[in-house]
Amino acid sequence: MLTTDLLVEGVHFARTTASFEDIGYKSAAANLSDIAAMGASPDYALVSLAIPSSLTPSDIHRFYRGFMMACRPYGVHLVGGDTSSSYQDLFVNITLTGSVAAGRAIMRDGARAGDLLYVTGTLGDSLAGLKLLSSRKRAKTRSMRSIGETRLIRRHLRPSPRVEIGHLLSAHRLATAAIDVSDGLSGDLRHICTQSGVGVEVDAQALPLSSELRTYAHVHAMDPVAIALQGGEDYELLFTVSPRNRAKLLERCRQMTCPVSCIGIIRPKTFGVRLKDRAGAMRRLPQVSYRHFQAVSQRREVS
Amino acid sequence: MLTTDLLVEGVHFARTTASFEDIGYKSAAANLSDIAAMGASPDYALVSLAIPSSLTPSDIHRFYRGFMMACRPYGVHLVGGDTSSSYQDLFVNITLTGSVAAGRAIMRDGARAGDLLYVTGTLGDSLAGLKLLSSRKRAKTRSMRSIGETRLIRRHLRPSPRVEIGHLLSAHRLATAAIDVSDGLSGDLRHICTQSGVGVEVDAQALPLSSELRTYAHVHAMDPVAIALQGGEDYELLFTVSPRNRAKLLERCRQMTCPVSCIGIIRPKTFGVRLKDRAGAMRRLPQVSYRHFQAVSQRREVS
Repeated sequence: MLTTDLLVEGVHFARTTASFEDIGYKSAAANLSDIAAMGASPDYALVSLAIPSSLTPSDIHRFYRGFMMACRPYGVHLVGGDTSSSYQDLFVNITLTGSVAAGRAIMRDGARAGDLLYVTGTLGDSLAGLKLLSSRKRAKTRSMRSIGETRLIRRHLRPSPRVEIGHLLSAHRLATAAIDVSDGLSGDLRHICTQSGVGVEVDAQALPLSSELRTYAHVHAMDPVAIALQGGEDYELLFTVSPRNRAKLLERCRQMTCPVSCIGIIRPKTFGVRLKDRAGAMRRLPQVSYRHFQAVSQRREVS
Repeated sequence: MLTTDLLVEGVHFARTTASFEDIGYKSAAANLSDIAAMGASPDYALVSLAIPSSLTPSDIHRFYRGFMMACRPYGVHLVGGDTSSSYQDLFVNITLTGSVAAGRAIMRDGARAGDLLYVTGTLGDSLAGLKLLSSRKRAKTRSMRSIGETRLIRRHLRPSPRVEIGHLLSAHRLATAAIDVSDGLSGDLRHICTQSGVGVEVDAQALPLSSELRTYAHVHAMDPVAIALQGGEDYELLFTVSPRNRAKLLERCRQMTCPVSCIGIIRPKTFGVRLKDRAGAMRRLPQVSYRHFQAVSQRREVS
């Protein structure tokens, strides 16, 4: 299988908030995450760069260092690519190949009413990290940041692709559908629902939130659940599991360091895409699409 | 096998000289040509586009129409890609997969001293076409162009990837090394020489020139051989053949519509990369690198 991802300066990243190592690392992680969501093992990478004249050879070297830092744990080989000049902005296009045993690839169209909806790790951390990086207080030195803030920023700049758990889900046929959370829970969940022809009920109370995100939201008088719903680029896996495989999933996941949380249930298509809020009221899941770097550069705030 | 190619507006193409169909067609052809040079059959394509707001949905539709026009004869399936916004310029990144029987892929490192150097079709037409498109007389309406000029422009905008002949070379193990002429004869030939650890003697007299190029050069008081040496984006195949396979090659090629010409001989590395000019004098092959659209946008002229 093949995946490709285009990252554009000013749209997906900014040199003011990310180092070249970060940009390289994240461009690899985004593609590794795509491969992970199909339950596959990543194999070969191609990197295309359109490079503005403002970059030095050392900047490019640092980009590749970050890129390989993300790839090396999975034995991914960088086998080629293309470079070009660019007038102003840096453009990065990554292509990654992956392989999976015949018939084991996890698609987006296999979710059925009654399946349980799971997500790995925690949601919203990346958006909080991006907000911290982009806030006017960014002059703050590293040492002045709390450990929690540093962790949120790291979650944004150096996300962990869930390759191992993706592989576990495919190897044991545990997931009926999967996707990675890159554009945000609401948008990515809609891809599964549309392609599987189903609806979904998401439980706001069950969304996994890190203690760092809760602290951040408290300090900034924000709703952590709203951040988790709006946030993108967490690169967690969102997947559906038949109820009969629930025990097997939990048993397997106990052996992994990455926690999984059940956050809802797949419903028939007519049910729509709905959120049960913390008061137990059911409402439509707001259709917000994470806009990467623009989310903050345009000073959009989570309402 | 995998190939990727990045095309940047203002570097590789200009909207003033190419339609969106042309841009789509050529971005496919460049990648098909890469696959052809390895003797492989193209299979699947991924298209990434960074799209400036000045483009309309119809422009994008026309890009894909041109792209598929080039792909369809080879049964290539467009299986995915990515899109993003861009501030100013259109960026296109194509990834193409190809397949070839085990052990049959043609590499760049197999040329040996004594091998004959061949090229398909004719050289320099694309550069002449680009010059015609970019000259100040571009206000000239289509109907005022001669048939020859129209053909040169077409060779620039709609190059024919040599997929069939690439396949023939690999299927019958006829070539010891191959590359496609995208950056220009001099640069691409150097790739074969460096990777094979050999030198080469190119015969200026033997370079295949179209009658359209000869007429163009005559009218503009230029040297057609210089255009052929400097030109790029002809997407012809440049390949080396062991002398014992010469008769077999010519026999096979008689069945193809595309002519091949022997333009030189591979020499030991110490010989270097040299050109026997029309007077029979030997000199270093000038190291000019075709600079795509910039070749003309910067008003560089063939000397």
